[in-house]
Amino acid sequence: MEEYLDFAKSIAYEAGNIMIKYFNEDNHSTYKQDKTIVTKADIEINQYLIDKVKETFPTHSVDGEEEKFGKSSYVWVCDPIDGTAMFARHIPVAVFSLALVVDGTPVVGVVYDPFTKNLYHALKSKGSYKNDKPIHVSDIKLGDMRSVCHYDMWNKSEYNIYDIIKEIGENTYFVSIGSIIRACMCIADGDFNLAIFPGTKNKYCDMAAVKIIVEEAGGKVTDLFGNDQRYDQEINGAVISNNVIHEEVLSVIKKYLKNKK
Amino acid sequence: MEEYLDFAKSIAYEAGNIMIKYFNEDNHSTYKQDKTIVTKADIEINQYLIDKVKETFPTHSVDGEEEKFGKSSYVWVCDPIDGTAMFARHIPVAVFSLALVVDGTPVVGVVYDPFTKNLYHALKSKGSYKNDKPIHVSDIKLGDMRSVCHYDMWNKSEYNIYDIIKEIGENTYFVSIGSIIRACMCIADGDFNLAIFPGTKNKYCDMAAVKIIVEEAGGKVTDLFGNDQRYDQEINGAVISNNVIHEEVLSVIKKYLKNKK
Repeated sequence: MEEYLDFAKSIAYEAGNIMIKYFNEDNHSTYKQDKTIVTKADIEINQYLIDKVKETFPTHSVDGEEEKFGKSSYVWVCDPIDGTAMFARHIPVAVFSLALVVDGTPVVGVVYDPFTKNLYHALKSKGSYKNDKPIHVSDIKLGDMRSVCHYDMWNKSEYNIYDIIKEIGENTYFVSIGSIIRACMCIADGDFNLAIFPGTKNKYCDMAAVKIIVEEAGGKVTDLFGNDQRYDQEINGAVISNNVIHEEVLSVIKKYLKNKK
Repeated sequence: MEEYLDFAKSIAYEAGNIMIKYFNEDNHSTYKQDKTIVTKADIEINQYLIDKVKETFPTHSVDGEEEKFGKSSYVWVCDPIDGTAMFARHIPVAVFSLALVVDGTPVVGVVYDPFTKNLYHALKSKGSYKNDKPIHVSDIKLGDMRSVCHYDMWNKSEYNIYDIIKEIGENTYFVSIGSIIRACMCIADGDFNLAIFPGTKNKYCDMAAVKIIVEEAGGKVTDLFGNDQRYDQEINGAVISNNVIHEEVLSVIKKYLKNKK
């Protein structure tokens, strides 16, 4: 596994270089058919990963947000840039995310934030790290004034979570920072205690590295209904927490989202 | 006015140094009586400004979010760190904001983002600038998929804007990046087209520099009801836009917020 981790880290640092290279450029973004934004950097990073996997682990496959390759049971699941809309608008909140997923389960996870130069990683049963120092989730409860919840929202998201976030904890500070993965690294590191993600279609690439990094740091990741997820198929949204508040959040969600879609 | 601008810029760069100095530290935040967060950096910057104004313009006064000084009609209105909650959690979305306000109107405005090293400034009738290059708002309409709206939200904010943001444009991407002033610089620079701010009490320090920088870039800043604001007294929330969508947004707000508080 160490070999895979070293590989993932080296890809992450190069992805960060590509992000920084384009960050101050203007007009390098276009829109995909689903109306989500993509930049030259997303495409370049995704292709770089494919090239490197072909070269280093030719039997493995790649499932990147922008392009896929191969049909192995060892899959490198990648979001080249999470937070593209922020990145394209010159806000330094965007990360690279990569996980090695075997039979639907992440066994290696790496997330890199090139703006703060923080690299987060986890191996199954080996803990979570930021720049090789151990990190842990907080024990902050929902009523605590230090409580911070990130949520994502878009008009065509699969689930409407407005009512849910209204009910969760009167002291909680709600933010929507533009990158679910960046927010989840704050959970792993103890700065946030919750994130709620209404995404489903093609969104497992957002959660594959998050799953292992947050859980190895002591947190919890499930779908919106409390079920475990596989990271090779569609997910039913996600709840990412410091674990101690997970059941309480799920019970609020249950009141509003009666049925799986 | 050039003298005041140079002074404001020099304060801004030093404030940026103080922010960077504390950014990676842990546990440097505490909570104020109103449950909002404050850090050592906020207090140090506010005190630095007071010291420098006393030294340079001894007849002027300072109205900082953390501390005030003097009773002149020339008032340096300052938010030492806007985005403190993000700053304290190591997310590089936080800015320093300073305006010289005369009779309630900003005549000089400076905002500095030490993470991207962008300094925004404006003088009355002289245009808006980012690192001394002219900037302009976009002409992006609400239905455009490039539309980005920042909104702030907290459970005890004076106005509830949930229903409003639900109705504004199906293609609009909503974010809540943790710093209203940083978001408004994106409006001045054409990256965002709208921000809605439900704050009132003690919040004019958030809008004083924004007002002049956004409007000199071609945008528009009013309260939630379309009225002009003074930046030496409470404001009734704020709508900050690229101007072309301002009336449309106000008409949606009017449907939900019938009365001034």
